Amino acid sequence: MKYLIIGGVAGGATVAARLRRLDEKADVILFERGEYVSYANCGLPYYIGNTIKERGKLFVQTAEGFRARFRIDIRTRQEVTRIAPERKAVEVRNLITGETYTENYDKLVLSPGAEPLRPRIPGVDDERIFTLRNVPDTDRIKEYALKRGAKAAVVIGGGFIGLEMAENLRHLGLRTTIVEMADQVMTPIDFPMAAIVHQHLIQQGIHLILKDGVDHFERNEGQPLTVCLNSGKRVEADLVILSIGVRPETKLAQEAGLKLGDLGGIAVDDHLRTSDPDIYALGDAIEVNHLVTGGKAKIPLAGPANKQGRIVADNIALGDKSVYKGSIGTSIAQVFDLTVAATGANAKLLDREGIPYVASYTHSASHAGYYPGATMLALKLLFSSTDGRLLGAQIVGSEGVDKRIEMLAQTIQRGGTVADLTELEHAYAPPYSSAKDPVNMAGFVAENILSGKVRVAQWDEVASLPEETIRLDVRTRAEFKLGSIPGFQNIPLDELREHLQEIPKGRPIVVTCAVGLRGYLACRVLTQNGFDDVRNLSGGYKTWSVATAPVRDQPE
Amino acid sequence: MKYLIIGGVAGGATVAARLRRLDEKADVILFERGEYVSYANCGLPYYIGNTIKERGKLFVQTAEGFRARFRIDIRTRQEVTRIAPERKAVEVRNLITGETYTENYDKLVLSPGAEPLRPRIPGVDDERIFTLRNVPDTDRIKEYALKRGAKAAVVIGGGFIGLEMAENLRHLGLRTTIVEMADQVMTPIDFPMAAIVHQHLIQQGIHLILKDGVDHFERNEGQPLTVCLNSGKRVEADLVILSIGVRPETKLAQEAGLKLGDLGGIAVDDHLRTSDPDIYALGDAIEVNHLVTGGKAKIPLAGPANKQGRIVADNIALGDKSVYKGSIGTSIAQVFDLTVAATGANAKLLDREGIPYVASYTHSASHAGYYPGATMLALKLLFSSTDGRLLGAQIVGSEGVDKRIEMLAQTIQRGGTVADLTELEHAYAPPYSSAKDPVNMAGFVAENILSGKVRVAQWDEVASLPEETIRLDVRTRAEFKLGSIPGFQNIPLDELREHLQEIPKGRPIVVTCAVGLRGYLACRVLTQNGFDDVRNLSGGYKTWSVATAPVRDQPE
Repeated sequence: MKYLIIGGVAGGATVAARLRRLDEKADVILFERGEYVSYANCGLPYYIGNTIKERGKLFVQTAEGFRARFRIDIRTRQEVTRIAPERKAVEVRNLITGETYTENYDKLVLSPGAEPLRPRIPGVDDERIFTLRNVPDTDRIKEYALKRGAKAAVVIGGGFIGLEMAENLRHLGLRTTIVEMADQVMTPIDFPMAAIVHQHLIQQGIHLILKDGVDHFERNEGQPLTVCLNSGKRVEADLVILSIGVRPETKLAQEAGLKLGDLGGIAVDDHLRTSDPDIYALGDAIEVNHLVTGGKAKIPLAGPANKQGRIVADNIALGDKSVYKGSIGTSIAQVFDLTVAATGANAKLLDREGIPYVASYTHSASHAGYYPGATMLALKLLFSSTDGRLLGAQIVGSEGVDKRIEMLAQTIQRGGTVADLTELEHAYAPPYSSAKDPVNMAGFVAENILSGKVRVAQWDEVASLPEETIRLDVRTRAEFKLGSIPGFQNIPLDELREHLQEIPKGRPIVVTCAVGLRGYLACRVLTQNGFDDVRNLSGGYKTWSVATAPVRDQPE
Repeated sequence: MKYLIIGGVAGGATVAARLRRLDEKADVILFERGEYVSYANCGLPYYIGNTIKERGKLFVQTAEGFRARFRIDIRTRQEVTRIAPERKAVEVRNLITGETYTENYDKLVLSPGAEPLRPRIPGVDDERIFTLRNVPDTDRIKEYALKRGAKAAVVIGGGFIGLEMAENLRHLGLRTTIVEMADQVMTPIDFPMAAIVHQHLIQQGIHLILKDGVDHFERNEGQPLTVCLNSGKRVEADLVILSIGVRPETKLAQEAGLKLGDLGGIAVDDHLRTSDPDIYALGDAIEVNHLVTGGKAKIPLAGPANKQGRIVADNIALGDKSVYKGSIGTSIAQVFDLTVAATGANAKLLDREGIPYVASYTHSASHAGYYPGATMLALKLLFSSTDGRLLGAQIVGSEGVDKRIEMLAQTIQRGGTVADLTELEHAYAPPYSSAKDPVNMAGFVAENILSGKVRVAQWDEVASLPEETIRLDVRTRAEFKLGSIPGFQNIPLDELREHLQEIPKGRPIVVTCAVGLRGYLACRVLTQNGFDDVRNLSGGYKTWSVATAPVRDQPE
């Protein structure tokens, strides 16, 4: 049997290695347009920032090593220019010699990836404006960043790669500006969670510009580039990173008549087979099932691509028995001292799909508070208001974020509920967790909402509460004095029962505290003492204050 | 309604607080024999070792604070001496005044905990021999450890508390010996995993004595105590910690005629109700369902106790609707620079219960190898040889152990399989994981075994392989030179295909490499080239070498 693979990074390399393990005798040819296969593309920003010091570390496996170990015919610098499904053949151009040739296949695998968007903004062709996809991009960016006299960088787009690039450019000592069109960075998380990241970026000296886009780039001889924004703002840059998103590489597939999905990715079935039964596809170029919404999604992440690679190889070598069920888009990024992670659907996606949900915010210590080094985790759950099914989760914090997102991701992936979160038997010792893990706590809070033990108000309702609303802050006097929500009056929780007489009945009440826990206790006291319309502010003062904090236009 | 709770630490305090949240009007009385409620008992060793510096941190909630917030009638230093279920009453002794009185109940909750074993060894009553259960124990141990001239400590019993105590005593500068009767420390993990801990303890300067017990303690006026072992060894100690296990406190329950289980704990139903419908019990004193074996188990851990507390309160206040399904015994401990964690059943338990299983060992980097700071995780899976159900998991490593045990624990808890591990969509960025997480990898390896793609040999079979066995080590020559298993010959993987002719057919082959990955690839090459009886050494040289490394009797 003869198998051809197009694309030699995450997905393609995995397919090749697994195919060989399953079939020692097969002909396996891997075409890679670039110079390198199987490199660490998620590591590229860190090599630019010198966190990864040796360039050689980026090469997980060289073409040479791959050939020796797996007897794969690796053809770098060779580009497949056309697929002819009717003849089961591909046309290939050798980019070094320029010659072209044809190669037949029994099965073909497409792992072309996705390319960074490069919008047609005036001036965008300047050599100082980069996108980051591969090792040569990386080398060029690093060269510019380390150039004598390079002082300032502008990153256009505040997604995961944009933030990783901003952090690494800052590490190199460059004044770094992020320009983001939306009102928040990192679209996988919702605004109040992103607001924590905004404040952290500013603290780290990043110049953060939200709700603004690039109008044009201005070139001035011998001078840095000027990035001219829609707002009229002008930012100087010795280099610019464009990281506004990626687009699946579907040209080959499309020209071959393979079916594309509505989102523009290659359409595949559960076996990762395209509309042609002898052609499989995987990775950033395909559309997959979103396990929360039930719809299709483009999820350009390395983890899914690797898992898909194994499944494609199994289906090719062993018959179509393996199924890729879909993805929930679990993602994570380090942003200076923060870790930001998300899984499942966020509020925007649920709204768009018309899926009803409740959001709840909790803030918990990353491990037992009495053991040194605990830091706070902000955790957002989105769950079904009818059956408690967990739909999405987001976490921002310094320590233990990755652990909690795994716990939540697994629950979402298997269709679990917030009640399942309350039962998760976690590993507890003081350096690692609390007797009730933050994930258990989030589950308890959600379950209390779901079972009607407490009703919640959201941070963005505070500004528009009906006039007659009684607004109670049940923190201690000392905490209240350090900052509070305008219009809230202070009755410390431990004194609440003595002051019940003073609270007029028949009016709506919203209670807050620091993070929502004491507020919940107060709500229970009030509800059981004849107050009917009581709500607890989800996430308390902490969520409200960060979500409403201004992102000032910091001077450069 | 009037609710009485016996025991004010983890479980009891949780029940009290939740009862109040559910029922503002109920009478809730909590009896605690000791002086303190709701203290951080898992933090006690760390306070002794000065990791937790302030004693006040140990008190999560004071009796005073608890009263103010929850209107619970907290009665510290008051011991319930008898339960009279027929009258729904308890007899109480005030330990300060000596007076006794009776209190009636509608519902009674038993959360008495477990007491440390103190075997009748000659000399065991010496004041320098301690068990650790509560704050006064902690104060006494710390006083002795910091005494002028205190130089040496002996910890009897190498369980979780024993190791935590040894580490903390070492932090205080004491020469510390661990004496353990079994051939390994930490019974939740199996021998080859514990062997990693043994080597680490020795590196950290702990004097580790295995397979030995205390015969008697010898007192010499003005001198340290001498701990005289069964072997004849003698170890001097300024203080001794007895940490050989705990026993459920069941005296009250037993005298009240409540049913005990076969393991000696209080028997409860799924609603955590004892044999008396008005008495609930929880925590270290009860027997619970073991979700892997289906049998009963005693699981004295704070996490389950806290979760049970919430369920007991719900069942009392809202009717018996909440169910405690059982536990899988997920546990974790910090041991100097290592983290040791286990979940589900280990090999000993599965053997005892007659449950057939396969064990597989993997060694993976805690995050992407190209990103700085990755360390190795040793991971053991135990899974059903018939349907792949995950039965148990153990991890030893420095970083990211807690995350992976959560991922595995959740899969075990819900009855998942090793195939589920291959599908887990984890959060990948270089500082946190690899494109294939160690848990995915362990799943892939297990699935390859289960589907017959590879057969495995275990480290303890190596010494007794049939004479004719061909033993191949497929690491590089350089690796092989640094140490290898006696009798194994070196053919580097990348050269294996050229040397197939030289390997005689018809004889059994066992292959090894560093951790099992290249060995697996070699097995696939051999199997597909006409070698029938090929096995891969699970965990490779790494598992074999640590499991067979001697635990020398280090001079004190």
